Amino acid sequence: MADYIEPRVLKGFRDFLPASETIRRGLTEKIEDCFRSFGFAPIDTPALEYADILLGKGGGETEKQIYRFRDNGDRDVALRFDLTVPFARFTAQHSGELTFPFKRYHIAKVWRGENTQRGRYREFTQCDFDIIGSDSVTADFEIILLIRSVMKKLGVDVSIHVNHRGLFNRFLSHIGQNGKLTDVLRAVDKLSKTGEEETQKSLIELTGKENAEKILQFIKAKGNFSQVLDRVTELSGGMSEEAQRLACLRQYMADASEGDMETFVFNPSITRGLDYYTGVVFETFLTELPDIGSICSGGRYDNLAGLYSKEKNPISGVGTSIGLDRLIAALESLDKLPCANTCALAIACVNSEHSGQYQNLAQKLRQQGINCEVFTDPCGEKQLVKQFVLAEKKGMRYILIPSDNPPNVKLTLRDISARKNEELTINEIINKLKPV
Amino acid sequence: MADYIEPRVLKGFRDFLPASETIRRGLTEKIEDCFRSFGFAPIDTPALEYADILLGKGGGETEKQIYRFRDNGDRDVALRFDLTVPFARFTAQHSGELTFPFKRYHIAKVWRGENTQRGRYREFTQCDFDIIGSDSVTADFEIILLIRSVMKKLGVDVSIHVNHRGLFNRFLSHIGQNGKLTDVLRAVDKLSKTGEEETQKSLIELTGKENAEKILQFIKAKGNFSQVLDRVTELSGGMSEEAQRLACLRQYMADASEGDMETFVFNPSITRGLDYYTGVVFETFLTELPDIGSICSGGRYDNLAGLYSKEKNPISGVGTSIGLDRLIAALESLDKLPCANTCALAIACVNSEHSGQYQNLAQKLRQQGINCEVFTDPCGEKQLVKQFVLAEKKGMRYILIPSDNPPNVKLTLRDISARKNEELTINEIINKLKPV
Repeated sequence: MADYIEPRVLKGFRDFLPASETIRRGLTEKIEDCFRSFGFAPIDTPALEYADILLGKGGGETEKQIYRFRDNGDRDVALRFDLTVPFARFTAQHSGELTFPFKRYHIAKVWRGENTQRGRYREFTQCDFDIIGSDSVTADFEIILLIRSVMKKLGVDVSIHVNHRGLFNRFLSHIGQNGKLTDVLRAVDKLSKTGEEETQKSLIELTGKENAEKILQFIKAKGNFSQVLDRVTELSGGMSEEAQRLACLRQYMADASEGDMETFVFNPSITRGLDYYTGVVFETFLTELPDIGSICSGGRYDNLAGLYSKEKNPISGVGTSIGLDRLIAALESLDKLPCANTCALAIACVNSEHSGQYQNLAQKLRQQGINCEVFTDPCGEKQLVKQFVLAEKKGMRYILIPSDNPPNVKLTLRDISARKNEELTINEIINKLKPV
Repeated sequence: MADYIEPRVLKGFRDFLPASETIRRGLTEKIEDCFRSFGFAPIDTPALEYADILLGKGGGETEKQIYRFRDNGDRDVALRFDLTVPFARFTAQHSGELTFPFKRYHIAKVWRGENTQRGRYREFTQCDFDIIGSDSVTADFEIILLIRSVMKKLGVDVSIHVNHRGLFNRFLSHIGQNGKLTDVLRAVDKLSKTGEEETQKSLIELTGKENAEKILQFIKAKGNFSQVLDRVTELSGGMSEEAQRLACLRQYMADASEGDMETFVFNPSITRGLDYYTGVVFETFLTELPDIGSICSGGRYDNLAGLYSKEKNPISGVGTSIGLDRLIAALESLDKLPCANTCALAIACVNSEHSGQYQNLAQKLRQQGINCEVFTDPCGEKQLVKQFVLAEKKGMRYILIPSDNPPNVKLTLRDISARKNEELTINEIINKLKPV
């Protein structure tokens, strides 16, 4: 048996101490409340799955990064690396038990053996939400609206950049460059990273000077939503199903914003690269911190569960994922994180003989929604200052000092940072501290 | 690339569909609210750790059940099989950053390659809470009180069976049988499983007839808390530190229950077998379903993090774990599960052109705390019945039907199961559905 083991965690993995975990849970709860208020329901799937399920579509990067091993029964298993693949498997497996259109969210950890030097973690939380089994533009609209609602609930303004992959495809066909779709997408997708000059160079190489010019005109179209829509509709050969869908979306957004469309931007350079999206795509930027990149990206796809379905009855949908770590980092630098302490009041342990009464007192406060910690270790009336220090260290605002003998007849409420004492009845304390 | 992959999960692993996941999250939230109201703070640790950390104390069963493998960097890693070992490692690693006494909870998944034939799962949720860095009986008391509070919040009455491992040890010394502690504990621990006769047989084999008789007298002492305490104090050679501690505990419990001690039972046959507990131990039984066994067991330990600490400065504590799966099964059979649907109202999509206005309407309701799903696929006024069916399938109580043109001027609220329509204003609907 070992005598001493150095306590440590794996590279790219993290412990969450009370302050940061309280914040993470507080944020997650707010996000969940918002999902539920829209009628989205939670699901959960196993952390560990058969490797062939998770790796179904193959792919180099995933295969290199996935935690894959043989279990004690010699099964080829792996930890999930995202929530999308398990959701596809889940949908195929349970389609008979689900009611469509199905609106679900899933907040859970995923694992990737990424290069940690890029500031990435190997264990992180994803937060996905989707509407599946509906082709309706109303569903596209609701996902985008829900992003705005979640961010509003977290106290930040966002700008949501929208495009339509199909419209871009139509435009490429119109200029006779559809065969180069993948490479062109790759070049366009790098616009925000490598700048216009590099993109232009790549596009000229791929499509020639004239076509490159047209593509740049398309992806750089400027103006309000309607103006950009008119321009790219024209560039892609006139009115089309895709342009019509975007016009619908714009109308819903305008109605739901009472005309104030600042949140919604038509950005034809957003393509979501080589992802599996086929329709509307979008990215979300914080108004006050646009440079950290999109904190919530997604779009419409046309065959979620095909790989796992015998019937080949495609289930389409629209969905997105919030990058919780990036969002928390952003909220922190904007000083908009929720409070790290959910308990602002302690009851001092003047005399441990009265522990039962202290808990009775605490219970009266808790029943009124006032969180309240009872200190467990006695200090004696002369050493109360030790408990003031403890309460302060724990980030509490108040400490309640019950009288000694008889207990709880006289209550002193001390404001710790103000160093002020007040003698109050239990009802006065409740009125003072009760959450509104 | 694969063409079709059979959708399936690993044996012992589960998908949670919306109804069951909503219930799980609802329960967890209630439990968490209760923890927070007592000033307990959440932590989190990685799912994956170095295998030597998790297997530190060795042990056959654990080693056979653990999911252990070499990661892409050839590290010997494993999935956590409980939350206690990671907490010990966490405490040693971060002791300088924590404020003691430290009250924490941790709700997270753990993995064990158990034999699934016994109805066990290989992935399940644990819910642990502890107070560490305090030797105080007040801390023992608070953990026990918190169990009662959590269960009350979930709407069930419990009986909490308490004992003291040290008192049992003292008693064995008193009758000269301390050398056989481990074997005697094993025999006693089986009392509730194999019955008195078997236990008696084992004890006679181990300690002889006379001692076996005394041990049975000890573990079968009956009466109220004080009566049992008096009896086992006498049997263990008179007043002791341990008996004194239990007397204190009894007093606090009586004070916090205003004399009504029905919840708290002194049960000298509870030993928690070969666990690492050294002081007070307890098990929790549902009053209406005692036969399913303890749903929350724990106790006091005297050196949580020793294996991971160079300083050998022992951190003692008291803590326990709620078995969430067993609790959910019990609540289900008692018909006391929280509601599986958190959204009781849908807005029909009469005309998708008005999707923006429907969301505005929904927003007004959501702002009043009324969860509200907007249906995304239009049906036309003549096919509204399709949306009634959808709402019913989703377990909703109401559907709101806005007038078509102009939208939202006239609102019809339909009670789906009663098949009754009412024409109401938005404010009347808010008053009717607003949560209290």
